[in-house]
Amino acid sequence: MIRVGINGYGTIGKRVAAAVRAQPDMEVVGVAKTRPNHEAATAVDSGFDLYAAVEERRSRFAEAGIDLAGGVEQLVEVSDIVVDGCPSGIGAENVPMYRKHDTPALLQGGEDAAAVDSSFVARANYDTVEGAEVVRVVSCNTTGLSRLVAPLRETYGIEKARVTLVRRGGDPAQSGRGPINDILPNPVSLPSHHGPDVNTIYPDLDIDTLGLKVPATLMHTHSVNLTLESSPDAEAVRELLEGERRLFVVPEWLDIDGAGALKEFAGDAGRPRGDIWENCVWGESITVEGRDLYLFQAVHQEADVVPENVDAIRAVLGTATAEESIRTTNEAIGLDKGLAPSPR
Amino acid sequence: MIRVGINGYGTIGKRVAAAVRAQPDMEVVGVAKTRPNHEAATAVDSGFDLYAAVEERRSRFAEAGIDLAGGVEQLVEVSDIVVDGCPSGIGAENVPMYRKHDTPALLQGGEDAAAVDSSFVARANYDTVEGAEVVRVVSCNTTGLSRLVAPLRETYGIEKARVTLVRRGGDPAQSGRGPINDILPNPVSLPSHHGPDVNTIYPDLDIDTLGLKVPATLMHTHSVNLTLESSPDAEAVRELLEGERRLFVVPEWLDIDGAGALKEFAGDAGRPRGDIWENCVWGESITVEGRDLYLFQAVHQEADVVPENVDAIRAVLGTATAEESIRTTNEAIGLDKGLAPSPR
Repeated sequence: MIRVGINGYGTIGKRVAAAVRAQPDMEVVGVAKTRPNHEAATAVDSGFDLYAAVEERRSRFAEAGIDLAGGVEQLVEVSDIVVDGCPSGIGAENVPMYRKHDTPALLQGGEDAAAVDSSFVARANYDTVEGAEVVRVVSCNTTGLSRLVAPLRETYGIEKARVTLVRRGGDPAQSGRGPINDILPNPVSLPSHHGPDVNTIYPDLDIDTLGLKVPATLMHTHSVNLTLESSPDAEAVRELLEGERRLFVVPEWLDIDGAGALKEFAGDAGRPRGDIWENCVWGESITVEGRDLYLFQAVHQEADVVPENVDAIRAVLGTATAEESIRTTNEAIGLDKGLAPSPR
Repeated sequence: MIRVGINGYGTIGKRVAAAVRAQPDMEVVGVAKTRPNHEAATAVDSGFDLYAAVEERRSRFAEAGIDLAGGVEQLVEVSDIVVDGCPSGIGAENVPMYRKHDTPALLQGGEDAAAVDSSFVARANYDTVEGAEVVRVVSCNTTGLSRLVAPLRETYGIEKARVTLVRRGGDPAQSGRGPINDILPNPVSLPSHHGPDVNTIYPDLDIDTLGLKVPATLMHTHSVNLTLESSPDAEAVRELLEGERRLFVVPEWLDIDGAGALKEFAGDAGRPRGDIWENCVWGESITVEGRDLYLFQAVHQEADVVPENVDAIRAVLGTATAEESIRTTNEAIGLDKGLAPSPR
């Protein structure tokens, strides 16, 4: 069993902890939190050993009546690998601690690519990170774009990618985020960081990205244009995408018009927290004009990187091939069943 | 003086009425309304003669204590030209009435192109509509795209246009519209109608458009990619756009991040109803990668077609050249002063 420590039990950490626990070859040895809040309470209820992420704040847990198993350095010491789900910037600050204990670590996509040895998307570059000390599981948007690009570049070749990312302003629980009634070019100067970030996975991909922020919380939505090196018909592209494990091509008959309906559907399907681990590509939107492919896809910012973190554990430790790991991860969390009847 | 009738005194009609009244060569002979609501009250307060758009509802005006000058057919009869600002679909239904009275009419962009003799954007095809009986002033988005395309195709040539339109869900007063917390591909099948609609102005332009709807009310925002036939630097493109009368290239120092700030700025500048008649192009966003030009622009859906309607009156009646009309319209409504110091 791979002993996994989770440092940071927030939006990503808590989801990764649950996904790791579900794997047949892994166990969660503990989770670290900075302070006793509602997520710390849930961690304790879930039976995870809790560690204090910040030594000076240990007393706060005692005041809240929460028992600690120790400090974060002890967690790192007893872990074969640590998934760092701390807020952006803190992950990079934690790297010296992981290196000191000789414990490999996975950072999240909010960290700078320069802070890590390698960036990771299971479908794209699983085989490149074995033995790395610090690996970054890229952001939700970069994961979503890389998953889409992977089969299309392999099958048709991509001459140029142009993507407008219509981003949710904040997660549902981030009550301080905006905008409330606006459409913000964000960043206003181009390209947005997403294109260069995809280049950490596919260095030779010619990609330009533009980002906006809007008053929505549920999922990001991408308006995608790929100029291919050949001219497949739309139906062939659709079948190719339907064959991908972590792409959900939304069938027309489901009558799903946006992220609200997608999340409702995922909740009805019994997904934990209504999570959608797959890219959701509107089947009806897949269109080819000459060599230009167009489509819309939605990405659940809280969830799509979760199976990627699980795969990255095996990829770094070299305990399974990409094919084995992706299959195991999907089966363990229920992603293999998919959200709707479709040829997968 | 050109005698102008306004049939429909809603979002567009009331703005066009005010803009027509401000012109030195036009007068508003009356406005027609279907029912006595807050806009009818404003029309009376503004001193416009009011006509009943629907004969059977005349008594409702009497009940509300509003005097009528007559029915809409009388208005059409006394007008040299009618601007039809009725809801989408009604304009086309009114066409037989205008033809019966031999009165030229301007419909709005919600009508089908097949319902009219010609479509119109002053900057693009002013000279083509003289003597036409029924002309369509195209929609806010099509107007905004055509104005942007005009100088760029003239100067650099456009090989291909790809635009994602992030559309406001409804106008501020349209309280029944959505979405509330979602990002909707809309339409989900591609292309959206915007590209074909631009082709009513520029038939040979190769343009693909994608539309989304989001929970915002203030302005539409376009994520624009134009593959040019040459490779100008971004600064040259910026200077070209700054030289256009109905494009406002937003300077960085204004610190305007979205539609909210743009509308606030327009209100502070004393614009009626906070209207923004110009396309607003974020200067900082103008970027050229090879032959690919990228930029963001915002379009005020309630206002940008207003000066176009005024110009279309002169264009159809043949009373002024494009240059004369655009200058006269801009000076009369205050558009020539611009929103901020810039080289125009």
